Amino acid sequence: MRIAVLGTGEVGRMLAGRFSETGHEVVIGTRDVEKTLLREPGLQGRDLKPLPEAAAFGEVVVNAYGGTGTLEALREAGAANLDGKVLVDVSNPLDHSQGFPPTLFVKDTDSLAEQIQREFPAARVVKTLNTVNNTLMAYPRQLADGDHTVFVCGDDDVAKSVVSGLLLGFGWKDIFDLGPLANARGLEMMLPLWVRLYGAFGHPNFTFKLVR
Amino acid sequence: MRIAVLGTGEVGRMLAGRFSETGHEVVIGTRDVEKTLLREPGLQGRDLKPLPEAAAFGEVVVNAYGGTGTLEALREAGAANLDGKVLVDVSNPLDHSQGFPPTLFVKDTDSLAEQIQREFPAARVVKTLNTVNNTLMAYPRQLADGDHTVFVCGDDDVAKSVVSGLLLGFGWKDIFDLGPLANARGLEMMLPLWVRLYGAFGHPNFTFKLVR
Repeated sequence: MRIAVLGTGEVGRMLAGRFSETGHEVVIGTRDVEKTLLREPGLQGRDLKPLPEAAAFGEVVVNAYGGTGTLEALREAGAANLDGKVLVDVSNPLDHSQGFPPTLFVKDTDSLAEQIQREFPAARVVKTLNTVNNTLMAYPRQLADGDHTVFVCGDDDVAKSVVSGLLLGFGWKDIFDLGPLANARGLEMMLPLWVRLYGAFGHPNFTFKLVR
Repeated sequence: MRIAVLGTGEVGRMLAGRFSETGHEVVIGTRDVEKTLLREPGLQGRDLKPLPEAAAFGEVVVNAYGGTGTLEALREAGAANLDGKVLVDVSNPLDHSQGFPPTLFVKDTDSLAEQIQREFPAARVVKTLNTVNNTLMAYPRQLADGDHTVFVCGDDDVAKSVVSGLLLGFGWKDIFDLGPLANARGLEMMLPLWVRLYGAFGHPNFTFKLVR
């Protein structure tokens, strides 16, 4: 598929690489191509484009911006370039302004995923992968041979199927459909435990298995 | 050990029964013994006492009240009867007033466990078991032969050891020490996902394994 990964941080670089590796055509979107290449020379030779062009290219658009930058980046990508697209949101509404552990700037009665969906009503938002570190997102089998769970939620079943297919391509074995996008509240609210476990372990190579 | 279980709802009855079964002396605390027996005739013959007497009896006191009733019940039990005691908090700050799924009445920058600790500073509060249904609390091996995780957190290491011992007695295999009591924020914030999974499954016989 044609996949646009928006964001050139660790998550975006990891996902873009893995999508390429699993056979997709990938464009990486960033605000300023030249500045990004100065900051991340490893992206030389990759198909790096301004956000609107990248989003326009993608059949699937992945938001790999951090939570605080997400809505602004998607606005810059442009609603017209997101309409009808599967918009995969892997971000978390983490507020790092008070140090570690971060808190959540939206929670409980709303979620960042829903904020995105409200602002881009014609996009087909699917929340997923936000409960794992970027390496596990892309290479789930490197921990316990993939015997753990990734969640998807969203209001568009076809979009969830597309995303589940991409996750299978990454090697995910246990993909759990949590239902409508409002249930992203539950997924984003796992982060306060996640960040504390990260603090306890000193590394992010852990996750959860839904035992049932 | 001498264990006081405060609360006669499903959680309290389940835990009291399991503590008895695993060899402890158990007293169940309730506001009004007579009314409780009318409501729960199954408690006939059990050692049911008013909250202050029950708490006074226990070396370990378990708060099995629902989140909204917790602080009031502990006040009625009396600070003097909780001082120095291991106070096990299994409750969740669920606000059911707006229907299903419930929201949390404290979260992110505070937790119910911390509220308890602040109000009863001489109690040795340990948060645990709040992420599983009452049957799994007491009989963890009935799901996946117990191959899943229970968390403990608290500011008193000896109290956490006591609680871990009690959990081993219930059959828990994987007891994870999450550190100080402030990390109860992470445990309580798992509930928004838990309640949605409960909605999806239609039963509470599921839980999480921390894969690492």
